[in-house]
Amino acid sequence: MKLPTSVPISLPDWVEPLVASRQPALTVEQRMRLAIRLSGENVERETGGGPFGAAVFRIDTGELVSVGVNSVLRLNNSLLHAEVMALLLAHRALGVHAFNAPGAPALELVSSCEPCVMCFGATMWSGVKRLVCGATREDAEALGFDEGPMTEESYRHLQRRGVEVVRGVLRVEARAVLLRYQELGRPIY
Amino acid sequence: MKLPTSVPISLPDWVEPLVASRQPALTVEQRMRLAIRLSGENVERETGGGPFGAAVFRIDTGELVSVGVNSVLRLNNSLLHAEVMALLLAHRALGVHAFNAPGAPALELVSSCEPCVMCFGATMWSGVKRLVCGATREDAEALGFDEGPMTEESYRHLQRRGVEVVRGVLRVEARAVLLRYQELGRPIY
Repeated sequence: MKLPTSVPISLPDWVEPLVASRQPALTVEQRMRLAIRLSGENVERETGGGPFGAAVFRIDTGELVSVGVNSVLRLNNSLLHAEVMALLLAHRALGVHAFNAPGAPALELVSSCEPCVMCFGATMWSGVKRLVCGATREDAEALGFDEGPMTEESYRHLQRRGVEVVRGVLRVEARAVLLRYQELGRPIY
Repeated sequence: MKLPTSVPISLPDWVEPLVASRQPALTVEQRMRLAIRLSGENVERETGGGPFGAAVFRIDTGELVSVGVNSVLRLNNSLLHAEVMALLLAHRALGVHAFNAPGAPALELVSSCEPCVMCFGATMWSGVKRLVCGATREDAEALGFDEGPMTEESYRHLQRRGVEVVRGVLRVEARAVLLRYQELGRPIY
């Protein structure tokens, strides 16, 4: 078997038209609405991934930097959660290895659901200044998704590193997408 | 700013000739030697990444499935730790979204150093059956690298999910690469 030396990672085709020429999102609710919209479209269009969406914004201007949708089944890759997609693409957009580099604009990661332990780590290393979550860990676990060992201490760890954490933003709307995914009988992995 | 829709992820050019036509590695030490070799080359060749290497093997045959080196600085992307690279590429090699899918061969991830919390999560979701580590968390942290909130309970969590954990394999050799990186005054991030 030939060893792979590269891996292609891309968003589904429907994402770009949906986010192209968006106006800046100035409130946390506007930003969360985009993450939830992405999660919902990922379900309705059967893109091949869990009901999760995420987006990275500049905190000061509200400008959208990148978006992500869960792509685990579409790209056959367990690592490609919505937050991982959004963060990988935000690095691509900005060309810096850490968003808290001197002179870089402060960024926030907005996720339609509280992160799993992998995405928590990715959030920490990325250097975003704020993490905003919609649905809760319990909402995701009620469907059968596993978040791994995430605790309140995990969030305190982020805060001690200077990352502001805002949870439960538009939780009802975010959770509705999870319930829709469940109602459609889509795969839990 | 145009939103990126894809992100190119690839290994440094020197990796493929180094691993091409390798014989299967039948012992855990043989497998670890490859991970350590990759970590060391990543330092000596100044590829742009921390002193960390990883590889994924079939447990039954010892066949190499994929390799990774820390590529954070080279690709300007905080997520691209050695384990993340190796796991992304292993998914690419096998075309399955989880390595513990029915009928898939059991795999092991061999890392030159104990994983950070992000890579711990990635290991869990990937479905590898065994995690093998060389240098310890303390060895990495002595240089100034941050592993995040990883505890003994994190490893027990993996074990409860059916993942065998083997730590401290060729630790002295693995740690020597970390010390070499430090001696060269390379960046800690």
